[in-house]
Amino acid sequence: MRELQDRIRREGKVLPGNIIKVDGFLNHRVDVTLMEHIADEFARYFDVRDITMVLTAEASGIALATICAQKYGVPMVFAKKAKSDNIEGGLYQSEIYSYTYKKKVTQILSKEWLTAGDKVLIIDDFMANGEAVRGLCDLVSQAGAELKGIGIAVEKGFQGGGDRLRGMDLNYHALAVIERADENGIVFRE
Amino acid sequence: MRELQDRIRREGKVLPGNIIKVDGFLNHRVDVTLMEHIADEFARYFDVRDITMVLTAEASGIALATICAQKYGVPMVFAKKAKSDNIEGGLYQSEIYSYTYKKKVTQILSKEWLTAGDKVLIIDDFMANGEAVRGLCDLVSQAGAELKGIGIAVEKGFQGGGDRLRGMDLNYHALAVIERADENGIVFRE
Repeated sequence: MRELQDRIRREGKVLPGNIIKVDGFLNHRVDVTLMEHIADEFARYFDVRDITMVLTAEASGIALATICAQKYGVPMVFAKKAKSDNIEGGLYQSEIYSYTYKKKVTQILSKEWLTAGDKVLIIDDFMANGEAVRGLCDLVSQAGAELKGIGIAVEKGFQGGGDRLRGMDLNYHALAVIERADENGIVFRE
Repeated sequence: MRELQDRIRREGKVLPGNIIKVDGFLNHRVDVTLMEHIADEFARYFDVRDITMVLTAEASGIALATICAQKYGVPMVFAKKAKSDNIEGGLYQSEIYSYTYKKKVTQILSKEWLTAGDKVLIIDDFMANGEAVRGLCDLVSQAGAELKGIGIAVEKGFQGGGDRLRGMDLNYHALAVIERADENGIVFRE
């Protein structure tokens, strides 16, 4: 998606350790108009008339997932990070490793809001190693729901999460795949 | 706001300890159409043509704040919870007490995305003791920005956060103020 790539090239910052900051328009300050364009673009790849919900992970995916849900006329559900070891009943749970927090995190989702009849489109703003999305897929599977697709705005292609999903029988699509990011700039995968 | 009160009465659950669950439409599964109506309602109380941004706190306020920002044509910015004690520079910070986590939490906000020229509308989905909003007001003050108003969808009126804000010279408005919630049901403040 050209508009998104242009924004990343123009406003993204590359920090030591392959960290790419896009917090001016995607995940700290959010340009809602850009989110609308991203949601429209996803609608070209996924059959958004045949989903019952958009699913994302707390916290930064919520803004984009909300706009997608609005455009597609379905509710938005977000998996929460468990707040303590003392998790109440009635929840799906998946364990993921958070590279940001450098520890295991448990994603939780109330069984009330994801059921076997659901057709789920997973949306997230950013993917590196893909742990958050792996956890979300696991939640969908636990519910016996149907996974209709996975849409990611920005993928760090060199960290393997997206390629692992491409190797599986999943309807995965990322709108901007960063192949390389260093002092020479940001290069996108064709 | 009648529509919101009706939803709370119909779908809200009162749990022991004065906990009110509205996670079927507000803060776990999100009814985006309801968020649009809430955003329209806020526009009757606040001069949304005279703001430069909507500010909220991670995580559950993000969905509503995104729709508000979309309607008002401004960016949405969310304060993050600090992930470690090792906080980088260039950030505003405020310390709040999280009753959910039962510990102090540091809200952080990049100085890049909130400056002295900003006119800020704070939006959050839910207020109990008001710690999150207190922290956000503090961030606005640190930046020397102008606080134009504070809009809350659901306030637990009996926990004091809203009344404390009403006692200050702030443009505060909540759309559904719960006065009492127990086995006899939910009663709203007139």
